[in-house]
Amino acid sequence: MKYQLIIIGGGPAGYTAAETAGKAGLSVLLIERNNLGGVCLNEGCIPTKTLLYSAKTLDSARHAAKYGVVVPESFIDLPKVIARKNKVVRKLVLGIKAKLTNNHVTVLPGEAFIVDSHHVRCADEVFECDNLMVCTGSETIIPPIEGIKSVDYWTHREALNCSQLPSSMVVVGGGVIGMEFAAYFNSLGTKVTVVEMQDEILGGMDKELSSLLRADYAKRGVKFLLNTAVTALAQDEEGITVTYQTGGAEECLVVDKLLMSVGRRPVNQGFGLDNLGLELTERGFPVVDAQMQSSLPGVYICGDLTGFSLLAHTAVREAEVAVHHILGKVDMMSYRAIPGVIYTNPEFAGVGATEESLTTKGIKYKCIKIPMAYSGRFVAENEGVNGFCKVLVADDDTVIGAHVLGNPASEIITLAGMAIEQQLSVYQWMRVVVPHPTVGEIFREALAAL
Amino acid sequence: MKYQLIIIGGGPAGYTAAETAGKAGLSVLLIERNNLGGVCLNEGCIPTKTLLYSAKTLDSARHAAKYGVVVPESFIDLPKVIARKNKVVRKLVLGIKAKLTNNHVTVLPGEAFIVDSHHVRCADEVFECDNLMVCTGSETIIPPIEGIKSVDYWTHREALNCSQLPSSMVVVGGGVIGMEFAAYFNSLGTKVTVVEMQDEILGGMDKELSSLLRADYAKRGVKFLLNTAVTALAQDEEGITVTYQTGGAEECLVVDKLLMSVGRRPVNQGFGLDNLGLELTERGFPVVDAQMQSSLPGVYICGDLTGFSLLAHTAVREAEVAVHHILGKVDMMSYRAIPGVIYTNPEFAGVGATEESLTTKGIKYKCIKIPMAYSGRFVAENEGVNGFCKVLVADDDTVIGAHVLGNPASEIITLAGMAIEQQLSVYQWMRVVVPHPTVGEIFREALAAL
Repeated sequence: MKYQLIIIGGGPAGYTAAETAGKAGLSVLLIERNNLGGVCLNEGCIPTKTLLYSAKTLDSARHAAKYGVVVPESFIDLPKVIARKNKVVRKLVLGIKAKLTNNHVTVLPGEAFIVDSHHVRCADEVFECDNLMVCTGSETIIPPIEGIKSVDYWTHREALNCSQLPSSMVVVGGGVIGMEFAAYFNSLGTKVTVVEMQDEILGGMDKELSSLLRADYAKRGVKFLLNTAVTALAQDEEGITVTYQTGGAEECLVVDKLLMSVGRRPVNQGFGLDNLGLELTERGFPVVDAQMQSSLPGVYICGDLTGFSLLAHTAVREAEVAVHHILGKVDMMSYRAIPGVIYTNPEFAGVGATEESLTTKGIKYKCIKIPMAYSGRFVAENEGVNGFCKVLVADDDTVIGAHVLGNPASEIITLAGMAIEQQLSVYQWMRVVVPHPTVGEIFREALAAL
Repeated sequence: MKYQLIIIGGGPAGYTAAETAGKAGLSVLLIERNNLGGVCLNEGCIPTKTLLYSAKTLDSARHAAKYGVVVPESFIDLPKVIARKNKVVRKLVLGIKAKLTNNHVTVLPGEAFIVDSHHVRCADEVFECDNLMVCTGSETIIPPIEGIKSVDYWTHREALNCSQLPSSMVVVGGGVIGMEFAAYFNSLGTKVTVVEMQDEILGGMDKELSSLLRADYAKRGVKFLLNTAVTALAQDEEGITVTYQTGGAEECLVVDKLLMSVGRRPVNQGFGLDNLGLELTERGFPVVDAQMQSSLPGVYICGDLTGFSLLAHTAVREAEVAVHHILGKVDMMSYRAIPGVIYTNPEFAGVGATEESLTTKGIKYKCIKIPMAYSGRFVAENEGVNGFCKVLVADDDTVIGAHVLGNPASEIITLAGMAIEQQLSVYQWMRVVVPHPTVGEIFREALAAL
């Protein structure tokens, strides 16, 4: 069989590309070895947010008295939370299947193997294509810590399906995944310790707001060990013994469970990618142009495999750009305004430049930081909760970065994303009327305070 | 005393103008007869949203089981809800006072009276000004219904401070104010009947989504009487008897309380506005140009008094434009993208053109309507709840309208507002990367489905 486009990997990049190309009338074959939707939908973005919403509902019930609502008791029904999470995932996977079917995409379950840029093998059958898109995603990094093989540790996969609450746990790595699970298990009642090698959690996000989020969770009982490396692990009947080095000293801690969340790495082995002989970056990822095309014409690389951002929404946009290029439409990928969100409670989100990135590059900027209490709606809906909004502006008054700690940061950061992607000036943004009262008004307040 | 700017009215237009002008170094006198913040802050936007958040917290506790959270019982502590509402208002009023003080604005409590375009009297003192801004806001319309004077009816003011729950109530007028209070008292347990003269609630909003919101509240027990006019009111020990005409027949209903929310009208009497001899529109409001200047140079009209939109966020922007004009900065008011939000649960928001407005004008458009379930996050956070997103696109592929029924419509509509104000095409909007998963992704899904 010959297709105009063969896609390897059915995650956000793969299914977006398949749908877009199929809709445009291309013949598309999508090969996926696991479930459609990839890590994002099956064991990442969606299931974590579903669990976190249950935790948020519990938080809301516990703090209801602050808003004049009496809730004498509340507790979690963990098996039900997990069952609902599974139902949500099933529903959304079915939604993607339906979209692909409606757009005449052929979906083939199985392991793909790249023969050359025009031939892909799957289960002993070889398929021919005009264009090839590789979006194999990423996998959890398991660091070679002494004793790790003897320990029954968790990755996000096991943590997502935990139906019996651990009394204590160590989260190794205070990045996005680590912090979201720390927040989830903290809300549920587990005693959580986060171990982070760097001097702050959430590397890459605004450092000042990261430290405020950390202080907030510390108040709620999460213990943070920064500048700390786990050096050895061991398991016995009492639990997992975690040995770590902090400030020159070696200490240890015994916990019920250990979540490994030090990071993810692109999946670039085991499916014949090397057969293409693509040009690689210094970090070993395929070089792509602004249309996501690799050094081989007709071969596109999208999503985590590019090593750029490891975020589902980046993958989605990259896939659209690549398909547009195949279709001959003018388009190009821009990384100017890729938002990052941590779905803790409160949420923390940022887009565009950070103070750290600008300082590193020696770029001058103006910074406005205001409390979220400048938004009347934030005050109305966040009793006794603080938060901050920080906006970064270039010398020519273009908005170049925005960072928000406070609910619903995830939803309002999109506004800053649009402004930054469109390269709006402070003045242009101020001309946009924002409904009152909303938390989104916080950006106007910040810009007015400039 | 002489000022560069005298402002009459300390609502959103007045305090924004005062702060902006004071910050720019103008000498500013702000005269307000009641509390700073106007209706919006003291008895409108902010207090209603504070009460509605308490109601939402109660809703959330009641529906917690859907998310695996067990809440055996929950109830409202109404005096505490009211006390908190008052505290929120006090805090925000203090915030505005502080901003005005910091920007050297003189605030004078009292009734202002316009002598001429350069002289304003307050408590027997006459103040001189270079520029005059009139932003006296609006007041509740009390229709001349038979018997109304003998009835102890509520306006929003009394409803806001209700600390003993009525068992039943009639809401006269199914506009924004009526629907928000209907939603609030419905959540709290009052049997609510909404009487609306038109054939649908929420005139001016997307009619199809308005009817879906109505159907949703009908399921929850709110009774709607459309095409219905209240013809007489009477009060005795049993309560208020509401006589209404519907479909030619006269019927009646006895309820505990009656909320009058048929609309608001600009305040243009009693403070010497006539002395200016301003040019008026057909509807009797002062004519203003795109800089909010009236027919008299140096006299600006902002906020509800213009009769344009009666929304706080419109007033804020108008005030900025007017002050910029005084300061000699190029700016102009645009009404292309004024969002409207109803803070029911779910929220309902719209911005730009509606299908109704386009059809009336005979403008051709493309319409995409998709269920909110196209957003993975909406599915994760809204168990058993439906919703819709509708996007309207002009023939040249510019986005011209967006309407959302589903939480958090109020916060995500800002994104559509920015796109419409900036006159982005579908293609330009699609280039903006939106974090996954968010409800805000729904617009991308809609545009992709075009």
